[in-house]
Amino acid sequence: METKIWSPTREVIIGCGRPVVIIGERINPTGRKKLAQSLEQGDMSLLQEEARRQVEAGSQVLDINVGLSGTDEKALMVLAIKAVREITDAPLCIDSANPEVLAVGLANYEGKALVNSVNGEEAKLKEVLPLVAHYKAAVVCLTMDDKGIPKDVPTRLAIADKIINEAVKLGIPLEDIIIDPLAMSVAADDQAGLSALDALGQIRDKLGVNQTIGASNVSFGLPDRPFVNCIFLAMAVMRGLTCPITDPTNWLIKETLILCDLMLAKDEFSMNFISAYRKQFPLED
Amino acid sequence: METKIWSPTREVIIGCGRPVVIIGERINPTGRKKLAQSLEQGDMSLLQEEARRQVEAGSQVLDINVGLSGTDEKALMVLAIKAVREITDAPLCIDSANPEVLAVGLANYEGKALVNSVNGEEAKLKEVLPLVAHYKAAVVCLTMDDKGIPKDVPTRLAIADKIINEAVKLGIPLEDIIIDPLAMSVAADDQAGLSALDALGQIRDKLGVNQTIGASNVSFGLPDRPFVNCIFLAMAVMRGLTCPITDPTNWLIKETLILCDLMLAKDEFSMNFISAYRKQFPLED
Repeated sequence: METKIWSPTREVIIGCGRPVVIIGERINPTGRKKLAQSLEQGDMSLLQEEARRQVEAGSQVLDINVGLSGTDEKALMVLAIKAVREITDAPLCIDSANPEVLAVGLANYEGKALVNSVNGEEAKLKEVLPLVAHYKAAVVCLTMDDKGIPKDVPTRLAIADKIINEAVKLGIPLEDIIIDPLAMSVAADDQAGLSALDALGQIRDKLGVNQTIGASNVSFGLPDRPFVNCIFLAMAVMRGLTCPITDPTNWLIKETLILCDLMLAKDEFSMNFISAYRKQFPLED
Repeated sequence: METKIWSPTREVIIGCGRPVVIIGERINPTGRKKLAQSLEQGDMSLLQEEARRQVEAGSQVLDINVGLSGTDEKALMVLAIKAVREITDAPLCIDSANPEVLAVGLANYEGKALVNSVNGEEAKLKEVLPLVAHYKAAVVCLTMDDKGIPKDVPTRLAIADKIINEAVKLGIPLEDIIIDPLAMSVAADDQAGLSALDALGQIRDKLGVNQTIGASNVSFGLPDRPFVNCIFLAMAVMRGLTCPITDPTNWLIKETLILCDLMLAKDEFSMNFISAYRKQFPLED
């Protein structure tokens, strides 16, 4: 199944027969003091710099989250979309916990956006899915609900199924659904990696939809987190991860995802890998 | 399916429900001048040092190859087995291109050994499989034959099938067959990674046997080879690789395989990973 999103001048297609699509995660002020401060002042220059760096590093889609307490998140989202659009024509992923911000973001987005996110909570389903349907957007769906994040695989599958049913009722086509089966820390629960991988595999096999995952959670509490995330990402790609939300300015992460493409015969003559490597580590004259 | 090999005092079980078993590859003089020279002089001290280092780094099985032109490989194999046994009770993998050396190695091995290797060539089948049957050993089977190494998956599967049929006729049980579907360089052929991964997956699903692979071939001709090998190994584990023949004294390789166990819920409380990491990078007092 293929999910298509676009800006007026660029289309990105996500699908298991295609190279991995990297959704850049860095435009998000959570835990990032400088970015938060600049956004509070209505200064979009750092945000634009993050957009530029991520596109340069291989993000085909940029996630935009401007959630900051004490600010007008709706106004900021409009400014952020405009500011990013000055830098790149990459399609955007409108990201907020607040459905009103999603609505404003979608109203101010030219093209077909990705929405981040809905989950199985009744309130979320009622508030977010109609927006997605109205704006004919695609949507990231987290497999959690009013009871929290399930540890087991069948409950995640059931939540994915429930969200899909609700979405389809509203006319959202299946190919516009992207499931995030939620990877949790293996340091906290040594079954967490397997649960996430099995959820990915079963959702791919039974539902056939595209999937994203926030890989960095799995390594929480462990040493050598970037490498742990890389190994998990490579394993997750084998189970149906097609569009991770991650940080391609981290070279190891970027290299891992390019190598996944190479190992799955999606990098002709190894050109993407070799050129990315040479850009990262230029040969001396 | 579980493959069991043993020394008089240690049993190793290889199976997809268990942690990855690392077969240490370093006792092999090919391309290693110092080790070759010491073996030529009948000096087993370097070989013993390699045995010690690999076991220390997590090899549960040691491959023993003493193939050197112009030496009495049979006599060397007997000496090598004895020398390694002074260091460790790890089960051994008797490795030679010469069936007579395999025969002498097996005759001088106490326990149940692994034999490396047979392939689909008529001569190999006739010479090696009867030895494996006679000594009730397990055997690594390469999916190549008199026509060379096939690039495609169906031919590899057909060769695996043919070797298994011949083996079973001689009374070798299916669980004592370990297939190596042969990973080739992706730099030379950008379909090579996918072919190896698909061969692993189909052999696991259709034949159910354990599998090994020499991962380092895939990265031949590429930059950053150790990292490339790690990503391939993680992907291969997802397709049924259970006992790679590799070098665990390379920390990245070892870390990758331990992380595969962790992500597949085979490392309780992350203890193997955390203790290996702390051994590699001790905390300062």
